[in-house]
Amino acid sequence: MPNSLGKLFTITTWGESHGPGVGVVVDGCPPGLPLTAPDIQTDLDRRRPGQSDIVTPRQEADAVEILSGIFEGRTTGTPIALMVRNADQRPGAYDEMRNKFRPSHADYTYQAKFGLRDHRGGGRSSARETVGRVAAGAIARKILALAGGVEIRAFVTRIHDLAVPSAVLETFPTLAEVEATAVRCPHPATAAAMIDRIKQVRATGDSVGGVIAGRVRGVPAGLGEPVFDRLEADLAKAMLSLPATKGFELGSGFAGTLLKGSEHNDAFAPRAGGGVRTLTNRSGGVQGGISNGEEIAFSVAFKPTATILQPQQTVDLEGHATELAARGRHDPCVVPRAVVLVEAMTALVLVDHWMRHAAQNRTFKF
Amino acid sequence: MPNSLGKLFTITTWGESHGPGVGVVVDGCPPGLPLTAPDIQTDLDRRRPGQSDIVTPRQEADAVEILSGIFEGRTTGTPIALMVRNADQRPGAYDEMRNKFRPSHADYTYQAKFGLRDHRGGGRSSARETVGRVAAGAIARKILALAGGVEIRAFVTRIHDLAVPSAVLETFPTLAEVEATAVRCPHPATAAAMIDRIKQVRATGDSVGGVIAGRVRGVPAGLGEPVFDRLEADLAKAMLSLPATKGFELGSGFAGTLLKGSEHNDAFAPRAGGGVRTLTNRSGGVQGGISNGEEIAFSVAFKPTATILQPQQTVDLEGHATELAARGRHDPCVVPRAVVLVEAMTALVLVDHWMRHAAQNRTFKF
Amino acid sequence: MPNSLGKLFTITTWGESHGPGVGVVVDGCPPGLPLTAPDIQTDLDRRRPGQSDIVTPRQEADAVEILSGIFEGRTTGTPIALMVRNADQRPGAYDEMRNKFRPSHADYTYQAKFGLRDHRGGGRSSARETVGRVAAGAIARKILALAGGVEIRAFVTRIHDLAVPSAVLETFPTLAEVEATAVRCPHPATAAAMIDRIKQVRATGDSVGGVIAGRVRGVPAGLGEPVFDRLEADLAKAMLSLPATKGFELGSGFAGTLLKGSEHNDAFAPRAGGGVRTLTNRSGGVQGGISNGEEIAFSVAFKPTATILQPQQTVDLEGHATELAARGRHDPCVVPRAVVLVEAMTALVLVDHWMRHAAQNRTFKF
Amino acid sequence: MPNSLGKLFTITTWGESHGPGVGVVVDGCPPGLPLTAPDIQTDLDRRRPGQSDIVTPRQEADAVEILSGIFEGRTTGTPIALMVRNADQRPGAYDEMRNKFRPSHADYTYQAKFGLRDHRGGGRSSARETVGRVAAGAIARKILALAGGVEIRAFVTRIHDLAVPSAVLETFPTLAEVEATAVRCPHPATAAAMIDRIKQVRATGDSVGGVIAGRVRGVPAGLGEPVFDRLEADLAKAMLSLPATKGFELGSGFAGTLLKGSEHNDAFAPRAGGGVRTLTNRSGGVQGGISNGEEIAFSVAFKPTATILQPQQTVDLEGHATELAARGRHDPCVVPRAVVLVEAMTALVLVDHWMRHAAQNRTFKF
Repeated sequence: MPNSLGKLFTITTWGESHGPGVGVVVDGCPPGLPLTAPDIQTDLDRRRPGQSDIVTPRQEADAVEILSGIFEGRTTGTPIALMVRNADQRPGAYDEMRNKFRPSHADYTYQAKFGLRDHRGGGRSSARETVGRVAAGAIARKILALAGGVEIRAFVTRIHDLAVPSAVLETFPTLAEVEATAVRCPHPATAAAMIDRIKQVRATGDSVGGVIAGRVRGVPAGLGEPVFDRLEADLAKAMLSLPATKGFELGSGFAGTLLKGSEHNDAFAPRAGGGVRTLTNRSGGVQGGISNGEEIAFSVAFKPTATILQPQQTVDLEGHATELAARGRHDPCVVPRAVVLVEAMTALVLVDHWMRHAAQNRTFKF
Repeated sequence: MPNSLGKLFTITTWGESHGPGVGVVVDGCPPGLPLTAPDIQTDLDRRRPGQSDIVTPRQEADAVEILSGIFEGRTTGTPIALMVRNADQRPGAYDEMRNKFRPSHADYTYQAKFGLRDHRGGGRSSARETVGRVAAGAIARKILALAGGVEIRAFVTRIHDLAVPSAVLETFPTLAEVEATAVRCPHPATAAAMIDRIKQVRATGDSVGGVIAGRVRGVPAGLGEPVFDRLEADLAKAMLSLPATKGFELGSGFAGTLLKGSEHNDAFAPRAGGGVRTLTNRSGGVQGGISNGEEIAFSVAFKPTATILQPQQTVDLEGHATELAARGRHDPCVVPRAVVLVEAMTALVLVDHWMRHAAQNRTFKF
Repeated sequence: MPNSLGKLFTITTWGESHGPGVGVVVDGCPPGLPLTAPDIQTDLDRRRPGQSDIVTPRQEADAVEILSGIFEGRTTGTPIALMVRNADQRPGAYDEMRNKFRPSHADYTYQAKFGLRDHRGGGRSSARETVGRVAAGAIARKILALAGGVEIRAFVTRIHDLAVPSAVLETFPTLAEVEATAVRCPHPATAAAMIDRIKQVRATGDSVGGVIAGRVRGVPAGLGEPVFDRLEADLAKAMLSLPATKGFELGSGFAGTLLKGSEHNDAFAPRAGGGVRTLTNRSGGVQGGISNGEEIAFSVAFKPTATILQPQQTVDLEGHATELAARGRHDPCVVPRAVVLVEAMTALVLVDHWMRHAAQNRTFKF
Repeated sequence: MPNSLGKLFTITTWGESHGPGVGVVVDGCPPGLPLTAPDIQTDLDRRRPGQSDIVTPRQEADAVEILSGIFEGRTTGTPIALMVRNADQRPGAYDEMRNKFRPSHADYTYQAKFGLRDHRGGGRSSARETVGRVAAGAIARKILALAGGVEIRAFVTRIHDLAVPSAVLETFPTLAEVEATAVRCPHPATAAAMIDRIKQVRATGDSVGGVIAGRVRGVPAGLGEPVFDRLEADLAKAMLSLPATKGFELGSGFAGTLLKGSEHNDAFAPRAGGGVRTLTNRSGGVQGGISNGEEIAFSVAFKPTATILQPQQTVDLEGHATELAARGRHDPCVVPRAVVLVEAMTALVLVDHWMRHAAQNRTFKF
């Protein structure tokens, strides 16, 4: 089931960029959760194209329709099907892509794998697929907020070579701070520079990438299922399943390898009110694959958008060398719209792990 | 099934550091593969403690016993059970750990999750669990080599702040070059410095980490199952499921976010003899979650070993602040022994994806 | 994922009797299959309410909409989402069921499990959910027919105590013979009696059940995945997952236990043109959990419809004894409409097993 | 993972009849369960060959070794690996089977599926594989007994044409009553006749089958995961995954189809002390795929043992007609030893469903 994620709280996404629509089925949602379309729409609007002048101008209302699983405003425990119709399609803009593979896109690999492909707007490989993830993620996030008091925040820490001051990495910005700018970087000065940079590269038909930080607070100790379904392993998979991602690191990450053990270890201390805390958090909130109750902290790398408006060397379906200059609407930088994707994937992983943990450790008492 | 990995070629590992033994069951192995214990032992010996003077002195022959699934030297398609008995156990060396949580180890989180734990040598969270992964990985690697001509190579590219020259990252070293030094870095001068560094930190009761590169050649285009089981997503999960890992990056990785799209894209060109190749490989051999036929290239970050011989601040089972100075045998740097783990996990992911791809795309013809 | 079935060819159904609609997502469908809405509609029409005077008069066109996964008339290997809008809803007819549990329905158990339920028409437990199964089954059946020459036939062998002559059980009726009567029994005289019986019980506000036989020919030897995913085990599960089923038997079934081994065993003989056949088929086409190339033969028991128009003793939401007389439209006998369900489930199991078999046994050559 | 069963409480069995041993890995076991080898051995002894004069004389102590997952007498939540060494092997007794397919055995289908097979004693298709199921089932049963007060009982209700009086089917016999006779039928007079019948057929080199009833009491309402993982669907699959099974029925089963709805429905009544009960139990304790709190009741058909000592017509590996007369030790009737298998499979399904139910319905509160 390559289009499903999660063992107990499971989502299955479907849909292509230029088909009738995109959607998701959420199976395993706990019953009794108050849920209405606006709960979901809020996050969809943060992902929506056309939301600012630094993202793709494709016009999509992305209005969610709830098709099942809700009765009188509450989840019933049965599958929740959600659908968004595609509206602003311009398949003609993609005619050249029918026969030419766009460099660093999925055109060639889909053709090689399946023997045929829906070339319009990238078909299934389009980031439009993530509509379903965000819709499902909104449900997961509501569960975590209501039942667990968990807060999830993602934000942009670097665009191209413009990075926030390192002190910002130690903060847990508010949603308002993140949403204050179109680039979703909570440091206003850096955000302004980032927006300028994105407009510059767009003007030259080029693109840039960047880094998003993910933070979670309120997760109890105990989530994560070693040895293979370690919490960071499932977070890594979830993030690397997003289009355009190239890397994941937890806590100290790659930089942590520059420290000695004596510098890197997180000393334990009693937590006021009982329990245990760590004095530092190089572990990123996960030890031995299991949450330790500290803030979960990770970063995700997004490559520069593959679609650029400059001519590129490529090959056609018959295997002949040719040249391609992309048309069609696209984001000069996917990172600002990916912030809500990182949050959605995080929420989905956490709800699933919370249920798995409870199943093994809370069902039976001896 | 948190202790299983893979959908069609599935491994299930079991065992603790100081229990009777460790092992693995491989389910779904193709029938007819010639397989004997030495095929597996070769890789186990590369993981074995006591193999050099920079790793833990624990003495374990790690001799594998094949318990099922082989008949007259060939796999039968039924589960292959493999077991290694634990030999050199010194549970007494871990008495202090019964009541004290070792910083940046899994002691506290296992206790928090399960309410009890086998504290001896870290129990299930010990790297000794990876014996089963390496044994299963040896089978996967043999399948890939025999049936697909696939070569997998991992090697150390950095220990602490000692990195190989960047030109080395462009090479595909031979197994002999990797195995030439105890640290498994194919650049002899850097390897010598790394070995010195490891001995230095051991002498001070400290530890270091580093980075391992993974490389695969011979993988055909088409492996990877979007949207969630993208090849890089499953590689990321597999790597982050290894103890002590903190990060994963594919191809250009985090550094790739410093490039513009026009610099980052991999142009396509006709491949001599038919097909398509890329002129550069910033994609790391995967595009849109599917292999493109180029070399697969990634890196994994390993933190400094959490076990150090210096006194550390911690908490005991009753929640009181205390101090702990580790005893017991350990690696001052896990990276050299982790090379074969990275190779094993890579092989396991690739065989599983190869079978999944064939199932969907090769079973039926229309 | 309780609403998903299949490991490689996976369906996920969603929807309630009186929600916006019902549907299914098919994940893992092989690419390149020619597929249009009429391919699916044909089977949906066989399941459709209102199709004859012995089934429920609920009026539903059940027109399928293909939402994804098809491009220019062929499957692309990506998820196929199918939806049918609900039309003829009369939620008011179910007001009494909000507070009273219908005997031998799922009302009480859904309430007990989830703490709330959509009572309208049985909500998720309605047989309306099987629309998605039939739609997905039509795809599976087309794959089997086109790529494997496999024929699947189900037919009614008993309604209440009216059974076909035993000779009929040895035949493989044509689709036309099955569809010739509203009751889908290929023996015309028995069919006429069955139809009379159904009309009789309907007239008294009562209901009846019966038995459906399933037959498949053209399945090669080798499908089935011991030890747990034996072919008959997965068939049994698929059939018992259908509403109103009470039993499953393969080949000789329960009656076979009345024979001695010397009477029951199926002798082997050379098959003309190579291979092996059995002289009898008490095995039902499966031996040791794996198809042997003979006709697959099984039976499924369906209980009398739980909805009857006679007053029944029950309990309300507050736990008080009360009485309930069903209203709402219903089938006096579900068996005729269940024939296509049995075929659909059979097709789904076979395609999934075919792909699993090929994955393990055809991917790699040694 | 064809050799694994269960989504949260997962068992993976391995081993062949004449390999080094057989075993199982249990993943997902709740932590804190007191568990020692004798807890498991008790059930293994009920499955053991050589236990009476109506079963196979193969001598196996079947002494279980616990290899992992237990610390100081309690489960730790990590995988529990259990192993039994094979002892009384006589591979030479099976030489003829290397080249000839035994009728109604799995010899031909394994050969057809995998292209090779371990012919000794049936290899993987031997009922010896069920050692692992029984060992794992003993753990599941202990969980249910300790934490839920659940009792599981299976017993023989028919051997060949010798059936217990129908009143016996309404009882819940004690374990002592079941174990009182070698045939495990709790009705002494019938049991005596059954034992005679088994000895008779053995004397003529023939074999018989029969029917086993399964009963469970103490299961709360709410277990079962519609629409596909209905409780009876998973029970049916578990039972049909046992060697030699040909049918499964729940509650009224096939006979229930002879009743009208007004006769078949189980009226609801208030339960003393709160809740709801049914006045009859034709549903077999499951409604809409979910347990309703009543006794779970089902039956399983076992065919006559395929191994008989009379000459039979068959085919050899080269496809030539030939004759085969079995040698080797075998059971003239597998049913008495299968009683504990039915109990084990029932326990495994129930624990898994209990955990799944709790995960969705008890983890989060709104």
